[in-house]
Amino acid sequence: MQIPVRLKERSYPIILERGALQRVNTYFDLNRKVLVLTDDGVPRVYAETVAAACRAPLLEIVPQGEGSKSFAVLERILARMLEAGFSRKDCVVTVGGGMVSDLGGFAASVYMRGIDCYAVSTTVLSSVDASVGGKTAINFAGIKNVIGAFKQPKAVLIAPETLSTLPDRQIRNGLAEAVKMALTSDAALFSLFETGDPSENLDEILVRAIQIKRDVVERDETEQNLRRILNFGHTIGHGIESTANGALYHGECVAIGMLPMCSEPVRARLLPVLQKLRLPTSAALDPAAVYAALTHDKKASAERVSIVRVDEIGSCRIETVPLASLRPLIDSVVHPKGGFP
Amino acid sequence: MQIPVRLKERSYPIILERGALQRVNTYFDLNRKVLVLTDDGVPRVYAETVAAACRAPLLEIVPQGEGSKSFAVLERILARMLEAGFSRKDCVVTVGGGMVSDLGGFAASVYMRGIDCYAVSTTVLSSVDASVGGKTAINFAGIKNVIGAFKQPKAVLIAPETLSTLPDRQIRNGLAEAVKMALTSDAALFSLFETGDPSENLDEILVRAIQIKRDVVERDETEQNLRRILNFGHTIGHGIESTANGALYHGECVAIGMLPMCSEPVRARLLPVLQKLRLPTSAALDPAAVYAALTHDKKASAERVSIVRVDEIGSCRIETVPLASLRPLIDSVVHPKGGFP
Repeated sequence: MQIPVRLKERSYPIILERGALQRVNTYFDLNRKVLVLTDDGVPRVYAETVAAACRAPLLEIVPQGEGSKSFAVLERILARMLEAGFSRKDCVVTVGGGMVSDLGGFAASVYMRGIDCYAVSTTVLSSVDASVGGKTAINFAGIKNVIGAFKQPKAVLIAPETLSTLPDRQIRNGLAEAVKMALTSDAALFSLFETGDPSENLDEILVRAIQIKRDVVERDETEQNLRRILNFGHTIGHGIESTANGALYHGECVAIGMLPMCSEPVRARLLPVLQKLRLPTSAALDPAAVYAALTHDKKASAERVSIVRVDEIGSCRIETVPLASLRPLIDSVVHPKGGFP
Repeated sequence: MQIPVRLKERSYPIILERGALQRVNTYFDLNRKVLVLTDDGVPRVYAETVAAACRAPLLEIVPQGEGSKSFAVLERILARMLEAGFSRKDCVVTVGGGMVSDLGGFAASVYMRGIDCYAVSTTVLSSVDASVGGKTAINFAGIKNVIGAFKQPKAVLIAPETLSTLPDRQIRNGLAEAVKMALTSDAALFSLFETGDPSENLDEILVRAIQIKRDVVERDETEQNLRRILNFGHTIGHGIESTANGALYHGECVAIGMLPMCSEPVRARLLPVLQKLRLPTSAALDPAAVYAALTHDKKASAERVSIVRVDEIGSCRIETVPLASLRPLIDSVVHPKGGFP
């Protein structure tokens, strides 16, 4: 199936079909110079399949991990495109998760003031998150995603069979973001997590989660307001993520970060879902360090911060609170020895 | 007066008024953190006047010249904004010519995926050129403006009295771009150059030239097609500019670059106008070097290139020709010993 993302002249389809990778050139215009960007953690065969479908491919493999989202790697990619004589009519195709689509999408947005880009999403997390909405970025001065652009791709391709070959932990990591969207916007999707076996319902979960994010992005492309609901669980989650220093995945941190933002009855239903998905519900870290990281991560010396709260499953509200009021919320899920208090 | 640039939600006014610099905070929203970016060739008092009108100014002075349009300087600016805790609601104001608006506009476009920017234009060249259309960029790998973004400012301010204090050569350099726009689009403006004293008609020339560029940009914001007519004189001009290595100003190179692109009758009327403006009509350079620079500058290994021709004053046409066909055109205006053949 195809899920249209309608953003006027920046509209594009998300193609979600088993076997779609083998037909990539029917969905992407690859009859030009193409930078195929992937990382060394993605099975090489996916990028090679894309490259084989291009008239003039240039394969660039960057190291896996956030470290590649840097000015240094960005410049290397841009230099390769220049050396190969890329014009404004050529394009970038990213093959992998959110890291490569963030990096490659940003490169495409600044090369000659913007060339086409496409994404082949090979992780559950990037399929439900980075594939919708055109946020691209690199990290800078120790702050995640602080330099970037809104750059909508021309199309995104998801072949679900590539996702089921992921390590189990990565699949669960991605599903945390789908749980997040269910909580804020779709009670029926949340029930699917409560009653069914998520690994058997993967395609349906993907479609529903993508549609939720698509609906939000269509109404608020550049995060003026509504789009902030997608940050549910991310405020404390980001603080945990940078303090954990790689030990916890993004979705795992979001899972923990959602808990203090829920009402008591919602939390009571969320906990068993996270346990079923074998996602963590607390972090064994120093809460003071998490609070410090979160303050730094606010990207501003703000005294107040916007947070998203879920009082009832399927709806949410945005609240502006003093930064200091997050400290007890952190304490409720972060303890030096782990586990709930 | 105010000249509106209508680009839907990216619309903005160009304020062209004597004394406007002293009232800058009535035109720009400066009640926030403001990076005031200028270069050391711009009279310091202009940037200081802007800074004095800001609630929280941060003055950044970069070295004059194209060398500042680099990743290194960009990163330094972004780091300063981060250190000062700039949020998505803060902004950049550039004070100077096209170099600072290119650099500062690009910084604003990537900082947290885009914050507001404003420009105070203090050169004739940037007033008629960079102030309209939102092209921002840095140079990379020896190629001018190859990395950048389309980033429309929130407003542009031109106080004509700041322009008349420019060195005479800089004023004439800027007027070359106005002559360019007259040739492709406005026969009446060209007559103004033929009959009057341009230095006495500066305000009217500015308004007419800005309106021409504005009309083009409104119909083709991202240079898909029509906007290319603004490149009239720039193909050979850029080749001359990079070969001259700083000895010739941009407008001077454009003046020379226009001549081979005109029909014989147009050239006969253009030559006396350029002479009246004391702009060069030929360059004392090696034509082979200019051709080599131009090939490199095409930003692609294209065999063919788009050029703009003026057969009749006030209109033009875009033509795609083999790159090699430019060689005799270069020879007609570039000679090792200078002067016309």
